[in-house]
Amino acid sequence: MEIVTKTQRFRLSYEGLFLKNEKRFITDDKRKKMEKRKTLELRKKYINPSLRLSYKEPVKIVRGFLQYLYDEKGKKYLDARNNVPHVGHCHPKVIQAAQRQLCVLNSNTRYLHDNLVLYAEKLSSKMPEPLKICTLVNSGSEANDLALRMAWAYTKEKDIIVIDQAYHGNLSSLIDISPYKFNGKGGKGAPPHVHKVDTPDGYRGKYRYRDSLSGKKYAEQIRTVIKQMHREGKGLAAFISESLMGCAGQVIFPEGFLSHAYHHVRNAGGICISDEVQIGFGRVGSHFWGFETQEVVPDIVTLGKPIGNGFPLAAVITKPEIAAAFDNGMEYFNTFGGNPVSCAVGIAVLEVIQEEDLMGNAQRTGMYFKKKLEKLKNKYPLIGDVRGKGLFLGVELVSNKEALTPAIKQADYIVERMKEEGILISTDGRFQNVLKIKPPLVFTQDDVDFFVSALDKVLAEDKASPV
Amino acid sequence: MEIVTKTQRFRLSYEGLFLKNEKRFITDDKRKKMEKRKTLELRKKYINPSLRLSYKEPVKIVRGFLQYLYDEKGKKYLDARNNVPHVGHCHPKVIQAAQRQLCVLNSNTRYLHDNLVLYAEKLSSKMPEPLKICTLVNSGSEANDLALRMAWAYTKEKDIIVIDQAYHGNLSSLIDISPYKFNGKGGKGAPPHVHKVDTPDGYRGKYRYRDSLSGKKYAEQIRTVIKQMHREGKGLAAFISESLMGCAGQVIFPEGFLSHAYHHVRNAGGICISDEVQIGFGRVGSHFWGFETQEVVPDIVTLGKPIGNGFPLAAVITKPEIAAAFDNGMEYFNTFGGNPVSCAVGIAVLEVIQEEDLMGNAQRTGMYFKKKLEKLKNKYPLIGDVRGKGLFLGVELVSNKEALTPAIKQADYIVERMKEEGILISTDGRFQNVLKIKPPLVFTQDDVDFFVSALDKVLAEDKASPV
Repeated sequence: MEIVTKTQRFRLSYEGLFLKNEKRFITDDKRKKMEKRKTLELRKKYINPSLRLSYKEPVKIVRGFLQYLYDEKGKKYLDARNNVPHVGHCHPKVIQAAQRQLCVLNSNTRYLHDNLVLYAEKLSSKMPEPLKICTLVNSGSEANDLALRMAWAYTKEKDIIVIDQAYHGNLSSLIDISPYKFNGKGGKGAPPHVHKVDTPDGYRGKYRYRDSLSGKKYAEQIRTVIKQMHREGKGLAAFISESLMGCAGQVIFPEGFLSHAYHHVRNAGGICISDEVQIGFGRVGSHFWGFETQEVVPDIVTLGKPIGNGFPLAAVITKPEIAAAFDNGMEYFNTFGGNPVSCAVGIAVLEVIQEEDLMGNAQRTGMYFKKKLEKLKNKYPLIGDVRGKGLFLGVELVSNKEALTPAIKQADYIVERMKEEGILISTDGRFQNVLKIKPPLVFTQDDVDFFVSALDKVLAEDKASPV
Repeated sequence: MEIVTKTQRFRLSYEGLFLKNEKRFITDDKRKKMEKRKTLELRKKYINPSLRLSYKEPVKIVRGFLQYLYDEKGKKYLDARNNVPHVGHCHPKVIQAAQRQLCVLNSNTRYLHDNLVLYAEKLSSKMPEPLKICTLVNSGSEANDLALRMAWAYTKEKDIIVIDQAYHGNLSSLIDISPYKFNGKGGKGAPPHVHKVDTPDGYRGKYRYRDSLSGKKYAEQIRTVIKQMHREGKGLAAFISESLMGCAGQVIFPEGFLSHAYHHVRNAGGICISDEVQIGFGRVGSHFWGFETQEVVPDIVTLGKPIGNGFPLAAVITKPEIAAAFDNGMEYFNTFGGNPVSCAVGIAVLEVIQEEDLMGNAQRTGMYFKKKLEKLKNKYPLIGDVRGKGLFLGVELVSNKEALTPAIKQADYIVERMKEEGILISTDGRFQNVLKIKPPLVFTQDDVDFFVSALDKVLAEDKASPV
């Protein structure tokens, strides 16, 4: 595969510039010379302890460029973990868009501004009809909360159906609808208006990969839940789900799951919210949005993380009739949402995805990556499952392939060892035994080779063995 | 008053540069040449209609600099309305801080970074003991929601006491605690866990300015509400309030209100949350924080709007024991919160406030402003009340000084006419009859003179008369 693609051409031009000056770029920030020990000490003193640091020995990152992060000693890490710097850390075009607009104006949506409307037009053009009314906010959490408010206003009902192990954000209303949180440590279970259905997990769930009807069967549970709700006199406002599940452990829905689910939800008068915060913007390779892989059109779509390549930006996109129902006299104002700087950044991100064909790269590099991981699966019994679409991949580790016993310690060990090898990944899923791979979309086949050879090496070590 | 202050020196140097090149600065953005009509058309097509535009004929703003905004035709407006661009629109030092960090790294709090801890240390140093544990988020709304989550986790109770007409944010949990919203258009009233007490409004409320015990008397209602809650078997989690109320119509609490209120709340095991989103960072002139004017120390303080001069940034600051109670096993992660760019901006804003003595300027210019408004009050019967602290001022308009009949139409007329005169202000309060003045803190005495002479002119017009 030696064809130089659009993606590679762009990358080479940026990267060349950076690598030529790498030493200077890593060390030139003379203002910041605090020792790591001191940073950690101040962190313990002043920062909310609920904000966790990654790794046993935390990493201090001082610089980022495209798919690389650099620590305070200049050690370079291949970033296979962060889906927020979607088009690459510190992408020159995105930086420039922010820098320029910062000098000109940063105000709010109570005045007219071209950036807001041009961005909304551009974003809407990526959505299927009739999704075209945009609200710009500052985080995926704000987006999901607003989606709930819209669903409540439109349906005049309160109840929400969610998928087990889903995570939809850090706000109180979203902890309420996130089984990953309310059934996790410190959680208090589901509130009365929230109803959970099983994760449609073809590897570990009730219906497995070999069952060609599993999508329909998993969706059937939504119908059962609705019946039960109705018996209790409750009405359905919305069904919310990611289209490929992140925190649940990179779960890929079986074919037909969302179309059957949406059918049952709409039959009961509910609306369908697609949370694309983790997986939108071409990451899945074959499509721009995750929901498109399931051939459905949601009523509300929420966007976040990659949308601004790290700039605090997120969005809710819905149909005109839902926006109209929400416009019931109560003004919605979001102080920073839709400001000219955020919108300039959002526009730049969309342009870069297209110019550098990053969706195509996600598809090509993702397929190459998955194949190589599948080879490792045949080599190491620890790997129970390799799954994913595009550059959204999961490797589930088990210590027993029949019992599917989660290999939790081994997963931890591998993440730490990969860090030593200069590669950042994380774990997730109900048992934290799934290696989560979701790099910036500028990831290359060379990066894949480097990643896979390091993983191969680590998997061969004693502590990564199934027993 | 011809002494050149620190504030003026800085302002003159920046402004000189800008004004010298003003024409170029206004017109040089050649990429954006969309006609206003077209911008409005796209806005109607793609933007959530709940986001309201100001003014009968919306204003299109294309550029901002310090206390000025400029429309697409180059018309200059004195901005007496926007408290978000706290140190001035497009302040050179704040822009530079963002621009520099954007080129280096924008990542998340799962890695160590100096900006996060340095900013938290700096922000904490502005707070009284024992307020020192910071969580950085993306908006005042996110901050207030997190404050509620902390209060619920710490007290293990659910109920919240709020002040009538308060507004605490646009999230579902915050609409629930904002009488300004839940009792306003499209609102559904208070949910069962929310209890409202009267606005301590010395002009229009139950106890008036002349009553030297009114602070204590207003606070007494909190005790009554708590008793009623206890009879119903409910437990108090928190009392949340601004320290000077914004949306309620620039209401200044009578002396002793918050100290009595906090006393009753703490006696009942509740915690006290101070929402400084609108009024923090030296705006009140005499103190850095609004709660200091009431001589109290809250348990949680929330910060937003001015904190990043328009950059999406906000914070929650609390005591170690509340942070510890919140750290119950459930990780709190905020994707964009506390990223190195936001923190660089936050540090720059704090530095500018200090370097340019903007708190001192708020005090001096605010007093000068208030005196001039009081003179207008003696001249025009329409002005019922002039109130405020520093550069947080309100002018309440009434058509009858005895009956306090809200002069709503006149307030609308004045806001529109002031726009024609090149000055941006807004209205607020229960009846939208309070002129709200909260300019960037770089506002000068010349700006005050310009503002007051324009208001004088407009007040003399027929449509601004009490009848």
